[in-house]
Amino acid sequence: MKKLFTCLLTVALLALASSLASAHDPSSGGSKNFLQVFVNGKFCKNPKLTTVDDFIFMGLDVPRNTLNQLGSNVTLVNMDMFPGLNTLGIALARVDYAPYGLNPPHIHPRATELLTVIEGTLLVGFVTSNPDNRLFTKVLNKGDIFVFPMGLIHFQFNIGETNSVAFSSLDSQNPGLITIANATFGSNPPINPYVLAKAFQLDKSVINYLQQKI
Amino acid sequence: MKKLFTCLLTVALLALASSLASAHDPSSGGSKNFLQVFVNGKFCKNPKLTTVDDFIFMGLDVPRNTLNQLGSNVTLVNMDMFPGLNTLGIALARVDYAPYGLNPPHIHPRATELLTVIEGTLLVGFVTSNPDNRLFTKVLNKGDIFVFPMGLIHFQFNIGETNSVAFSSLDSQNPGLITIANATFGSNPPINPYVLAKAFQLDKSVINYLQQKI
Amino acid sequence: MKKLFTCLLTVALLALASSLASAHDPSSGGSKNFLQVFVNGKFCKNPKLTTVDDFIFMGLDVPRNTLNQLGSNVTLVNMDMFPGLNTLGIALARVDYAPYGLNPPHIHPRATELLTVIEGTLLVGFVTSNPDNRLFTKVLNKGDIFVFPMGLIHFQFNIGETNSVAFSSLDSQNPGLITIANATFGSNPPINPYVLAKAFQLDKSVINYLQQKI
Amino acid sequence: MKKLFTCLLTVALLALASSLASAHDPSSGGSKNFLQVFVNGKFCKNPKLTTVDDFIFMGLDVPRNTLNQLGSNVTLVNMDMFPGLNTLGIALARVDYAPYGLNPPHIHPRATELLTVIEGTLLVGFVTSNPDNRLFTKVLNKGDIFVFPMGLIHFQFNIGETNSVAFSSLDSQNPGLITIANATFGSNPPINPYVLAKAFQLDKSVINYLQQKI
Amino acid sequence: MKKLFTCLLTVALLALASSLASAHDPSSGGSKNFLQVFVNGKFCKNPKLTTVDDFIFMGLDVPRNTLNQLGSNVTLVNMDMFPGLNTLGIALARVDYAPYGLNPPHIHPRATELLTVIEGTLLVGFVTSNPDNRLFTKVLNKGDIFVFPMGLIHFQFNIGETNSVAFSSLDSQNPGLITIANATFGSNPPINPYVLAKAFQLDKSVINYLQQKI
Amino acid sequence: MKKLFTCLLTVALLALASSLASAHDPSSGGSKNFLQVFVNGKFCKNPKLTTVDDFIFMGLDVPRNTLNQLGSNVTLVNMDMFPGLNTLGIALARVDYAPYGLNPPHIHPRATELLTVIEGTLLVGFVTSNPDNRLFTKVLNKGDIFVFPMGLIHFQFNIGETNSVAFSSLDSQNPGLITIANATFGSNPPINPYVLAKAFQLDKSVINYLQQKI
Repeated sequence: MKKLFTCLLTVALLALASSLASAHDPSSGGSKNFLQVFVNGKFCKNPKLTTVDDFIFMGLDVPRNTLNQLGSNVTLVNMDMFPGLNTLGIALARVDYAPYGLNPPHIHPRATELLTVIEGTLLVGFVTSNPDNRLFTKVLNKGDIFVFPMGLIHFQFNIGETNSVAFSSLDSQNPGLITIANATFGSNPPINPYVLAKAFQLDKSVINYLQQKI
Repeated sequence: MKKLFTCLLTVALLALASSLASAHDPSSGGSKNFLQVFVNGKFCKNPKLTTVDDFIFMGLDVPRNTLNQLGSNVTLVNMDMFPGLNTLGIALARVDYAPYGLNPPHIHPRATELLTVIEGTLLVGFVTSNPDNRLFTKVLNKGDIFVFPMGLIHFQFNIGETNSVAFSSLDSQNPGLITIANATFGSNPPINPYVLAKAFQLDKSVINYLQQKI
Repeated sequence: MKKLFTCLLTVALLALASSLASAHDPSSGGSKNFLQVFVNGKFCKNPKLTTVDDFIFMGLDVPRNTLNQLGSNVTLVNMDMFPGLNTLGIALARVDYAPYGLNPPHIHPRATELLTVIEGTLLVGFVTSNPDNRLFTKVLNKGDIFVFPMGLIHFQFNIGETNSVAFSSLDSQNPGLITIANATFGSNPPINPYVLAKAFQLDKSVINYLQQKI
Repeated sequence: MKKLFTCLLTVALLALASSLASAHDPSSGGSKNFLQVFVNGKFCKNPKLTTVDDFIFMGLDVPRNTLNQLGSNVTLVNMDMFPGLNTLGIALARVDYAPYGLNPPHIHPRATELLTVIEGTLLVGFVTSNPDNRLFTKVLNKGDIFVFPMGLIHFQFNIGETNSVAFSSLDSQNPGLITIANATFGSNPPINPYVLAKAFQLDKSVINYLQQKI
Repeated sequence: MKKLFTCLLTVALLALASSLASAHDPSSGGSKNFLQVFVNGKFCKNPKLTTVDDFIFMGLDVPRNTLNQLGSNVTLVNMDMFPGLNTLGIALARVDYAPYGLNPPHIHPRATELLTVIEGTLLVGFVTSNPDNRLFTKVLNKGDIFVFPMGLIHFQFNIGETNSVAFSSLDSQNPGLITIANATFGSNPPINPYVLAKAFQLDKSVINYLQQKI
Repeated sequence: MKKLFTCLLTVALLALASSLASAHDPSSGGSKNFLQVFVNGKFCKNPKLTTVDDFIFMGLDVPRNTLNQLGSNVTLVNMDMFPGLNTLGIALARVDYAPYGLNPPHIHPRATELLTVIEGTLLVGFVTSNPDNRLFTKVLNKGDIFVFPMGLIHFQFNIGETNSVAFSSLDSQNPGLITIANATFGSNPPINPYVLAKAFQLDKSVINYLQQKI
């Protein structure tokens, strides 16, 4: 079945060096002449057929399964899961953490993140660019908000003995998520082990071990 | 008949977190391989078939009919009326005012507006955000320019005894126009009257009256 | 006491027609030569003096007082309240609703909003631009997310008999908030009553009543 | 005397790869802590001291003197002349043309232009990029609008026997204006004549003649 | 044969007044439902079929033929030549100069340029906007970098007795290139000679001569 | 000594949701009233004092010392090293590689990179986002260009027996550089070893070893 995306009409584009032309609301088009358009590489629905259900996503209150190696689970609601976000430049994530669960060091290549703790206690941190590589780290409790600036490596670690939950706001409809360990040691195909051994100053056998495990 | 839009070739897009890629002139494409493209949700003409008529819109000098309840008439020349604007991020409007005609409080959800008085005398104003809600208001005469910042509620009122005319520049090819009274009391379907009664601290019967009238 | 904002170094600017130059992390500057900079019209801290506390905002879990006319309370965490957001282009709000509490029709002149229901049941809606002024409306429950596109009039109404709470993500560090009723009938100084009477097709006495009340 | 610019509070900045943080309205700051800020390289007024006169520019209806070599006169109302435009990304120009007056080939390095003929008859044109260098040219009459895409060489020539007037909308608060003849043959100091002779395939004596004249 | 462009998935768009939604990496889409998309007016490849060859362009080390009138040759690697650049907002050029070869005065309507001298000695310059039209000029040697700001007229002239080579970085995937002499005197069709005669204060016969030659 | 940056006058800012106001050339300001401005968190020079030397950076042809653990050396010419780049949104890097030298896996949090091989033979690669984490890898020779999309982990490895040199174009004036191994295992202060052990599925003793070494 073909998935149709709600594009709210015509589409936001940045006209060069100049201004932003866009169409966020279904009434603004009057585009009677086309049935489907391609926006952001997605098929759009005919605006006349847009319904309110295109603007809602349900179920973010349901706890996710954290029975995995890391004890955490990220539910990213981007424009692939919530077509109505297309062209609106915003996304959301729910993160569940088992006790001592870890959302491991990762980056969002296209977004800043604002994390709000809904339940529990999290140790969080981010590391700045070379040459300083300063770690900014903090223990967060329920109701705390923390900001992870665009593109920096960051993590959250549940240091409590109960489950934790956090909601993340991301300022892109397609923020991307790159887990450092997976992208580095678990890519497909694998990165040349010599490269990793040299980069991490590890023995090639450790690299092989890591590449098999991850 | 299918309307074809002039896209001036390939299209302006903001490459992420980075730079602006765009193509404003018909010669820059060399795109011999496609016949029609979708840009901003519009079919584009084959650039080789672009003619000078795609870059012109005529008739903005003709006075518009202001025989209506408000005594004003807005002619918005956006990319739906002037396809050549597509991707160029700019639009124009002509506003005609009968004596005591009103362009009622409204917003452009996606543009700042620069209004130039061509004829007549206008009382104009805009209101700033909460909590101050300051009103900036002024009487404008022929040759005056006034700026209404992005997204703020504003209006123009012809306080003279003759017709007035203004030209508005808008920095989006699809600025949108939301008349406060219409969107609030005349939406389709109507907003729940209880919501409006509470918001405006009016009796529900007044709300019903307003919803029927508008 | 002078409030210092964390600017994370040097600052994000859009170099014209081109690309985005920015500096989101405190290590990237090497800016040994200045003590304070003005970014977004704020004094910035010396990056060397930035601490982790610049990136945290606390207390969003605390219920807010809704004992007011509307039965709702918006806590907007923008760059004025959370200086670390400066240049990061994102903000958050907590909204508390008493039973039958209303977050009345309003706009954010500079942001799209993604609302997540944390507790309770909300009737929400937004209205599109002229000429259609379509109302998209929906009942949301705990865990539902709803998107209000940039610049459109929208509202939330607690239709349950218990308190409700929602968290809103906004894709601007300074989204702005304009309550329609307040900006229209409660501006300072007031809008000319004749303008409002004509715009809303109400008797001038009703306008006077509204202007005094709001 | 120091000129103070109205910055409408804090300032629009593009937070990286992400979203637009900005403050277009004087009420949004609550910035009690500073007296003057630097925005766009301009001193800003204290927002509390902003008055409505910061948002108005007068006198665009007054005909300009066209008694010069070219028979034309461009009045560019950018943020230097109209401080309230600062951060709002829009500008305006009035162009007066004597009979047979010429606004010679020029570019705006940072803007698209939308020209509206107020009086008279103009022959206009723009040339596209290499390799095609197509000329799009048209005769415009009162009420016609023509769009000159970003960065392309364009001109207007009054082909009528009466004065002409046009208003130009530009989608930048600082669009810039580069007259081809002046920048090429009249720069200060002059471009090496050998360079120009080779570029234009003209004799060096013609270049010298041009450099002296322009 | 139809040329397919690598769009790296879905596409970067600027969601209005807000944030940047984009998708730069082939894994982020999960877009199983479409075979070809239109992005920037180009057909995109199915992301699943993207290969590493879409990200490489070869042969920039090969000297170009400079046996022409100007003694220079520009190889512009934009998104038409290197489809993988689409949406990434960057481009490159190689410029070869014979002894005394000239890259004549030109503009890039949509980009700033950073020129690096690989071999030889170049006299370079750019001219600023009206009214100053200041010429900034310099002799560059191997290893020097020079920046030509967005939209300004600039040139490079090989003042050495050997070949020179430069690499240019441009911050747009479609920067455009407008050679002043060609666009002014060699457009198709030609600009009205009267316009050029008046603009350059040259006799019409010189203009005719120039138009025939260029 | 205070370092003054060339800001080319007033400054590029993105006016909200709208258009780009900017000033790239020193003549456009006419800003007689200020002596120093703060742009991007830098002191700017008085535009009248700008000289051509603000637009040049020298010495990129000089081979860098690669006698270090990794056998590579990155010379990043960003706005801190080359003040004239401020607001122009572009930067450059020279990378030197000894035989078998490695530019280890890293990210640029704010830029896409276009790498051109000047000398030698490089094995390069980048890894896409979760969940696919596809590795795109290729051997590059002199004259090849390769593009690393915004924010993705990438590396270059000199697989030849001679020195290699590459030039990188980056579409931000402050792209940032985060070496994965350093930011992960060498931050200051160190990331909690338990976090890293869990993330990389390594024994805590290996983590300790890594943290001491890097």
